[in-house]
Amino acid sequence: MSISLSEFNGHIAQGTTFRGSSNGRIVKSFFQRSLGPDEVAVQVTHSGVCGTDLHYMLQDMVLGHEAVGIVSAVGSACTLFKPGDRVGWGYEHYSCGFCTPCLTNEECHCLNAGFYGASDFDQGSFSNIGVWKQKWLFHIPEGIKSEDAAPLMCGGASCFSPLIEHCRPIDRVGIVGMGGLGHLAIQFAAKMGCEVVVFSGSESKRTDALALGASAFYNIQDVSDFSTLGITKPIDRLIVAAASLMDVSQFYPVLARKAIIIPLTATKETLAVPYYDTLFTGVKIIPSMLATRFTQTKMLEFADRHHIRPIIEKFPMTEAGIGAAIEKLKNGQIRYRAVLSWDY
Amino acid sequence: MSISLSEFNGHIAQGTTFRGSSNGRIVKSFFQRSLGPDEVAVQVTHSGVCGTDLHYMLQDMVLGHEAVGIVSAVGSACTLFKPGDRVGWGYEHYSCGFCTPCLTNEECHCLNAGFYGASDFDQGSFSNIGVWKQKWLFHIPEGIKSEDAAPLMCGGASCFSPLIEHCRPIDRVGIVGMGGLGHLAIQFAAKMGCEVVVFSGSESKRTDALALGASAFYNIQDVSDFSTLGITKPIDRLIVAAASLMDVSQFYPVLARKAIIIPLTATKETLAVPYYDTLFTGVKIIPSMLATRFTQTKMLEFADRHHIRPIIEKFPMTEAGIGAAIEKLKNGQIRYRAVLSWDY
Repeated sequence: MSISLSEFNGHIAQGTTFRGSSNGRIVKSFFQRSLGPDEVAVQVTHSGVCGTDLHYMLQDMVLGHEAVGIVSAVGSACTLFKPGDRVGWGYEHYSCGFCTPCLTNEECHCLNAGFYGASDFDQGSFSNIGVWKQKWLFHIPEGIKSEDAAPLMCGGASCFSPLIEHCRPIDRVGIVGMGGLGHLAIQFAAKMGCEVVVFSGSESKRTDALALGASAFYNIQDVSDFSTLGITKPIDRLIVAAASLMDVSQFYPVLARKAIIIPLTATKETLAVPYYDTLFTGVKIIPSMLATRFTQTKMLEFADRHHIRPIIEKFPMTEAGIGAAIEKLKNGQIRYRAVLSWDY
Repeated sequence: MSISLSEFNGHIAQGTTFRGSSNGRIVKSFFQRSLGPDEVAVQVTHSGVCGTDLHYMLQDMVLGHEAVGIVSAVGSACTLFKPGDRVGWGYEHYSCGFCTPCLTNEECHCLNAGFYGASDFDQGSFSNIGVWKQKWLFHIPEGIKSEDAAPLMCGGASCFSPLIEHCRPIDRVGIVGMGGLGHLAIQFAAKMGCEVVVFSGSESKRTDALALGASAFYNIQDVSDFSTLGITKPIDRLIVAAASLMDVSQFYPVLARKAIIIPLTATKETLAVPYYDTLFTGVKIIPSMLATRFTQTKMLEFADRHHIRPIIEKFPMTEAGIGAAIEKLKNGQIRYRAVLSWDY
């Protein structure tokens, strides 16, 4: 690997980052930040490209939040990492540790959380450097290659979390949408013993879905009445991992009583809920966002233990490479996660 | 199959059963019972032999509670079964449906439950006939052979239930004892995505344990200090499926904080709990008995879907065959479940 190392001048971390801009062009920028006592400097080697990055690419901020890299320096109070460790970070990079959500194992809902797109605009994973609190960094298991680990840091964690929280191995789990998250959700759910069925509008993904562990694939393109899909066993849990909100009412004819619908889509759209049917079938709607640090850690262990890997397309970590990955993602052509790499 | 059919004279079911007796000999007896409106007559083809049967073999009662057979007649109010259906029953054969446990999905703790060894002494699965309430019969999935289904009806259900209730796919699950229940628990837990480690005193079972899905096997024969076993990752859930109560305090050095110990052993022995360590490590002790009808049904589906099968030794359903199976079970020589069959 021949990447340009971030440089340290005492406790000043320096490096290259890539920002969005109002005209949609990716712009290279210079990063410099001092290293606080509880902070870790990470030399980024790989970054996933997530649908959420599209939301921010017109803004003047450094992009990317699915990072994997090598620790290059640690602050004086850091106890969890040492230079040379392979680590990753994801969508959340700060939680206060003292608010009610933090104290009740809901740190993704920390009242003072630091999220991608909401703070620390000067750095991201489209870069060769990042300086972050050690608390929100994660060791990458030896068995997982860095290019495979990157998409797990947000995409993997985001679909693993509701599977662990709401799905049982005896459940028939529907996965709606087979993109970066969906293709990982299929694998996680199958290895948890669930019966997995996939709903997708892309017939071309059928073979992959079945190979990844699904027992059935339903092409829902141009289907308005889902009772015609021929589903005889109702769906207990429905993970909606589509790029935009689906019309969830379409799924009601194939849901079990007391089913749980779990939308993962990050969007400001309004979710239209068929209230009467929800009331009378006991369906719950529980959107799910990100993962606690515990779940993030367990997700990496689980992926390692069960050989769960994203299917990736690699692009170089350059203005042109990032632009190409984003363009392909916008057009729905990525199979199934773009990964930027310094050693492309 | 050439088994002697049970005969019907109107609504009188008749057949052959095998009883225990005070001198330990198995005695053939004649069974006759009228068929109530909500009852089903089952022509038994196979029965598992469970450790619990040893408790009752000196009593004057019909033995056996892991039955599989074919429905030969149904009462006038039966709606769930028809003649020719392949069904099974297990340890519980009656619940009232109206007490608090029944109304709160805890029907194994029904205040008026009918259990093996406690009621209906005139019939059991060591027989060619059984007459039972339809509510506690279960359809056997097509993919599971009858001889394999029999041990699932009690042994399978008893270990599946706590796995579904208390274990998560992210857990490291210890299975103590690798007999009829343990060898099924390994398979269930592995297919749920858990990391499975086995504790057994029989070195000869190591190869089978690993083949069934365990990632590690610890021979605990003559080991008094379990901290010497070389376990680096602590156990989150400990299923104790040994024939008699273990000294659970031995396991504390290898348990995770907040671990759950789940004894499945049916015994009237006293369980000695190291109180101080339990308090300070947050360990919970939750003995588990049998399965609800829901869990029993889901267990059969799960076993079918994941090709989970007991490893069995077959014996003929005769006085001599039953005696031989029981003798071998007493001596700890069954690998891993004895099954009696009319078509041996």
